[in-house]
Amino acid sequence: MGAFSRAAFLAVGSELLRTSRLDTNSLFVAAKLAACGVEMTEKRCVGDDAQAIAGAVSDLLTRADLVVVSGGLGPTADDVTREGVAAALQRKLHLDQELFALLQERYRRLGRSMPSIAARMAYLVEGAQVLPNPRGTAPGQWLEVGSRALVLLPGVPEELETIFALHVLPRIQGKPILVRTLKVAGRFESEVEQRVSDLYRRFGREKITILAGRGTVELVLYAEGPSELAAMEQAFAEVLGADIFGRDEATLPQVVLEALKSRGWMLATAESCTGGMVGSALTQVPGASEAYLGGVVAYANTVKVRLLGVPEEVLATHGAVSREVAEAMALGACRLGAQCGLAITGIAGPAGGTPEKPVGTVHVAVAIPGQLQHRRFLFGGSRQTIRELAANFALDLLRRVLKGAA
Amino acid sequence: MGAFSRAAFLAVGSELLRTSRLDTNSLFVAAKLAACGVEMTEKRCVGDDAQAIAGAVSDLLTRADLVVVSGGLGPTADDVTREGVAAALQRKLHLDQELFALLQERYRRLGRSMPSIAARMAYLVEGAQVLPNPRGTAPGQWLEVGSRALVLLPGVPEELETIFALHVLPRIQGKPILVRTLKVAGRFESEVEQRVSDLYRRFGREKITILAGRGTVELVLYAEGPSELAAMEQAFAEVLGADIFGRDEATLPQVVLEALKSRGWMLATAESCTGGMVGSALTQVPGASEAYLGGVVAYANTVKVRLLGVPEEVLATHGAVSREVAEAMALGACRLGAQCGLAITGIAGPAGGTPEKPVGTVHVAVAIPGQLQHRRFLFGGSRQTIRELAANFALDLLRRVLKGAA
Repeated sequence: MGAFSRAAFLAVGSELLRTSRLDTNSLFVAAKLAACGVEMTEKRCVGDDAQAIAGAVSDLLTRADLVVVSGGLGPTADDVTREGVAAALQRKLHLDQELFALLQERYRRLGRSMPSIAARMAYLVEGAQVLPNPRGTAPGQWLEVGSRALVLLPGVPEELETIFALHVLPRIQGKPILVRTLKVAGRFESEVEQRVSDLYRRFGREKITILAGRGTVELVLYAEGPSELAAMEQAFAEVLGADIFGRDEATLPQVVLEALKSRGWMLATAESCTGGMVGSALTQVPGASEAYLGGVVAYANTVKVRLLGVPEEVLATHGAVSREVAEAMALGACRLGAQCGLAITGIAGPAGGTPEKPVGTVHVAVAIPGQLQHRRFLFGGSRQTIRELAANFALDLLRRVLKGAA
Repeated sequence: MGAFSRAAFLAVGSELLRTSRLDTNSLFVAAKLAACGVEMTEKRCVGDDAQAIAGAVSDLLTRADLVVVSGGLGPTADDVTREGVAAALQRKLHLDQELFALLQERYRRLGRSMPSIAARMAYLVEGAQVLPNPRGTAPGQWLEVGSRALVLLPGVPEELETIFALHVLPRIQGKPILVRTLKVAGRFESEVEQRVSDLYRRFGREKITILAGRGTVELVLYAEGPSELAAMEQAFAEVLGADIFGRDEATLPQVVLEALKSRGWMLATAESCTGGMVGSALTQVPGASEAYLGGVVAYANTVKVRLLGVPEEVLATHGAVSREVAEAMALGACRLGAQCGLAITGIAGPAGGTPEKPVGTVHVAVAIPGQLQHRRFLFGGSRQTIRELAANFALDLLRRVLKGAA
């Protein structure tokens, strides 16, 4: 096949139209295609309905030169992707004897007799090439429709991903595109966008994607070769400097834990308004115990006093949401036997704000040997948003302090 | 408008076609529509491209009688949903003076002058009713197309959800279906499904949806009238009893905090493998401070000893993941000044398992005045899954103990 440029994705499954499941296969496929220079231009989701599948496939083939369909290839009566596609292409379905024998063999190896409905998985759309499925029973199918291609894959993610890597990617002879994700923390999306606006012009807006999280921002760079990628990466690093905390799969908790480990330091946390979110994020990283001791969820003032040694008069004079209390909490965390203490105290709302300390006011303090750093933030948004921003900006302040101490 | 039966959803945004973002607004909309008896039959996602939006809207209106579009209503040049929809319906866009004045007023209140691009948000598709946006700047639009309706909503979830609840739901005069969600904790989906299988037959499988979370299960009941709903609810309550922790919007942390408040008790937590997840979940509830003191993230053994008073010999004899240590942690948490202590210690993996204590082993202890309860769990799944299960099963054990103590 020739080079593809525009891909469309169709997820089949009535469960994907209800209230709790989302198709995630399209993310995997979009990433793999982007790396080949093929752009995903449209995604769809229809139920287990042959007519709806047929309509969607016909329509997508008018605009995309590569259509990937996931799901509906299993043995049950609900699995009607084969029928829908055959109808869309006005082709017949036929029982493939070789595939049928392979299915029988597979069941025999599992020590089970093949149920009669399983034979449905041996039906191919006329003209299909079989894409073997080493992780499961239902194979994929590759169909050529003029100069376009239509790929049918099972919906189980590990099966789809394996077949895609083994049998679909080699058939897509696209332009190889290199992808690099730069991860930024401690800045809002609008600040980052403003600072890199010259680079948008220099490299081309279509080569850069910006994605905002709560307290982190990702810049995805698409380059046509290693020298372009290196030039892009260097230019972004010059503009963003220490705001970039990592690349590709790196996460902020991981980077912070690595920085601690490289110094042989242990961290303890003292969280008030975030109530354990920073501890929870750090301990999600396997091996966190090498650099994280634990800490205190100091939600009530009595806990700040009893476990962290925050003086009662400091609480009375400055209030629980203050620089002084954040600093005392960070120092108190260190007394748990850690070289490094991170403290957060703030007003997450919706109640509790005052004109002097509105909802969204958050104080963060970081203590390391010989140094005590503080920052005050004013975040907007819901209680959940304010708490997530507080947790991520706190981790980022710690990262920056550790970097400076290197 | 008449009753709607088939809805379609279109998410607009080039970022939703890339490798890391999924539209989640459709889940919210599908849930709200299901409660009105309106079925979601198709979902789509296109980029910021007026022609693609126009094509999708035209096509969806041929099959669905309610089409909901999210995203692309902001002020920037990328936001072209208005243009796409106007093209699809062959209607004009016009500047709405009243809306323009409201936007100016909004910027004035924020102390900023209105940027000229913001005027784009004051354009309406001919015939549109404005759906005011109390959470943001861009309003929604409600359009009638013959007997069908087309709704345009901003893509920011909190804005979309608010406008949908305030202005879209009242316009959808579907078949009034009564919906009740029963929330279950402390059981796995398969256990719940087995126990209610007779009720599936009795009331009809299509009237019950089961949704599994990690450590919680929801049963959504759809009834045609109050007497049917009451009969269903009673039958499920008889079968599931104390496994049901709440209804509809209730969450496990909320229910636990309410049970504590009704006794005038304060809770303190002692978390090892969950690293703060329980504290984080509790403090997500506004007003948590009335019943939650805080606690200790006792990740390292030294923290268990120093802050919770777990005896070193108990750690040495039984190991950190043991009934004895969980109980000592719960009692240690109470000493922070709480009537109630909740402790979790376990092995979340991927490393750290032994034949006697495999990955997924979790001990939970609850202390209340005069009572110390313990349970050992063995959970399967990834590190994240094991941690979420541990946090939810621990909260549920606390709920059951508080219920028994009532």
